[in-house]
Amino acid sequence: MNDAPPSAVTVATPHSRYDILIDSGLLSQASAWAGLPAATQAVIVSNPTVDALYGDALQQALTPHYGQVGRVLLPDGEQHKSWTSLNLIFDHLLGQGCDRKTVLFALGGGVVGDMAGFAAATFMRGVPFVQVPTTLLAQVDSSVGGKTAINHPLGKNMIGAFYQPERVVCDLATLDTLPERELCAGLAEVIKYGPIADMAFFEWIEGHLPALLQRDKAALAHAVRRSCEIKAEVVGQDERESGLRAILNFGHTFGHAIELGMGYGQWLHGEAVACGMVLAAALSAELGMVSTGFAQRLSRLIERAGLPVVAPAMEGARWLELMRGDKKAEGGEIRFVLLGAPGRATVRAAPDAAVLRVIAQHSARA
Amino acid sequence: MNDAPPSAVTVATPHSRYDILIDSGLLSQASAWAGLPAATQAVIVSNPTVDALYGDALQQALTPHYGQVGRVLLPDGEQHKSWTSLNLIFDHLLGQGCDRKTVLFALGGGVVGDMAGFAAATFMRGVPFVQVPTTLLAQVDSSVGGKTAINHPLGKNMIGAFYQPERVVCDLATLDTLPERELCAGLAEVIKYGPIADMAFFEWIEGHLPALLQRDKAALAHAVRRSCEIKAEVVGQDERESGLRAILNFGHTFGHAIELGMGYGQWLHGEAVACGMVLAAALSAELGMVSTGFAQRLSRLIERAGLPVVAPAMEGARWLELMRGDKKAEGGEIRFVLLGAPGRATVRAAPDAAVLRVIAQHSARA
Repeated sequence: MNDAPPSAVTVATPHSRYDILIDSGLLSQASAWAGLPAATQAVIVSNPTVDALYGDALQQALTPHYGQVGRVLLPDGEQHKSWTSLNLIFDHLLGQGCDRKTVLFALGGGVVGDMAGFAAATFMRGVPFVQVPTTLLAQVDSSVGGKTAINHPLGKNMIGAFYQPERVVCDLATLDTLPERELCAGLAEVIKYGPIADMAFFEWIEGHLPALLQRDKAALAHAVRRSCEIKAEVVGQDERESGLRAILNFGHTFGHAIELGMGYGQWLHGEAVACGMVLAAALSAELGMVSTGFAQRLSRLIERAGLPVVAPAMEGARWLELMRGDKKAEGGEIRFVLLGAPGRATVRAAPDAAVLRVIAQHSARA
Repeated sequence: MNDAPPSAVTVATPHSRYDILIDSGLLSQASAWAGLPAATQAVIVSNPTVDALYGDALQQALTPHYGQVGRVLLPDGEQHKSWTSLNLIFDHLLGQGCDRKTVLFALGGGVVGDMAGFAAATFMRGVPFVQVPTTLLAQVDSSVGGKTAINHPLGKNMIGAFYQPERVVCDLATLDTLPERELCAGLAEVIKYGPIADMAFFEWIEGHLPALLQRDKAALAHAVRRSCEIKAEVVGQDERESGLRAILNFGHTFGHAIELGMGYGQWLHGEAVACGMVLAAALSAELGMVSTGFAQRLSRLIERAGLPVVAPAMEGARWLELMRGDKKAEGGEIRFVLLGAPGRATVRAAPDAAVLRVIAQHSARA
């Protein structure tokens, strides 16, 4: 067992500073769990599937540091990212006499991380928490940057907080047990960083997609690290999404409409974002911002990653209605994250006619 | 109508800076509503009683600044400070297509302010909000300092956030319609500032209690202003209650136990705090920290203000259980705000035996 301090990507915002540790085997590496805030109690928040695989290992790693280590299990799936699930955490914390020093550990994917993070942001007006992402999507995206939230029947992530973790611990070994479909969904967010910020990384992904799909540890380590570096840089410049940070939502305006329109849980978040990126790139091309060739190149990579490039059949009016509810919308105007050039994203409105044309070109027949 | 900019008490924390405006007639004074964040929509959160009295006036004042001014009414009372009520706000905001620039206005007492504030803290991860407190308690305490929360069946204010308003507008004229019992409950928090921070203010209250009870505007203006000044100074030094700010909870550890033990809504918050201050001062005397004479002097003032000085009959074990659930408790140890001297508060633990003795001496017979 290697106990040297793991190497880290640092996230620095005006209000906080924390490390993202990335390595294989971190769950059982003592140095990954040293130096966190002291407390008499720690609570691991997870779901039954992940808890069965890694709950004992994390509990064992934390036992030297906390007198009591509790475990709360939430039902899995985006459709359970609700107040009802969130309240399971509060019930446990209050039932166990937890106090405002209690440290929460989010062990799982994006759903667990978003809910444990929001619980930490609001329990007794804020307790410390640590992200322990066990899906590729959570490791490269949702566990980093402090966005926490639950869903509302009228919109995804509508109720939440910006609340930074104390640390993010990405154990690449946990990706070994990830279902194929979820690995691919995570690759969507990895691919995202290319067109919005780093074309060299995009080319690297094009070259290393087979290795990533085979879960080659060196390839995964580079993909996770570079994704986290880009995200950390963006979040450090704009923690509260007053401007730049919105570029991280490339593909998400269309994607959220798909998730909401189809019902949570039908499409995985990464799948909806993948298809959303195809639409956003096509809209960028439609508006003359990038070449059609580049939009097609992005679409090909997404398809090679086993991700959907054809949107589900939905009425145009329904698309617009769903996207007007997006958090980036202002005064009823939809704000799209589009490509100003390969490797550079920009936020702007678009004529409804162009949007509907692009949707029609990339949708399944009803 | 006087349209000079109203005089203000300023609250400055590391993350924000805002004014508390205090005057009679501010609801209809244009300058009180100028210079707030721009948005296409504003939403007034209130309860049916307060809305009927002041909703139209506030809506009229806001109409020049926002294209649409919506109104959401929440059921009144501490027992309704719940997720269910909070969700009425989210339903309205999403149903009306509000976005993350929408400004919320909390028009009412502490319950409305805490819920509208928490809704503002979490809707789309944070929108601007303005406190328009219409009770004495809210004007001198709950609307200032950025504490927002809802209750959990196992504890008061257990789920919430520190989230500062853009402005606090205290229209003293709204106190004319306040029921007598609520005026007295508000005086409890006014009285609180004396023993914890300012004995000159304490003496002023002793001398001006009749004027305050008769709602003399000059007396109320001084009481509200001095209370806000003290609170602003404390909050400016310790926004997140890592230390000093806890002194503002003088009387609240015992008080929360009374509220929770009797069931929300039986005792008003201010009444429970009043009785809690009697117990906390008596415990301070029991531990030799202040004279019994001073504890009695405080108790006399509280009684003259029409507030309870005898605690309800509850088992000692139940008291301790309820207080161990207090947010200030750490590792199961109750932390009391006690008086180190008249005009100076301090936070510390106390032997159970002393706590139970003091409770027995100041409780009604079962």
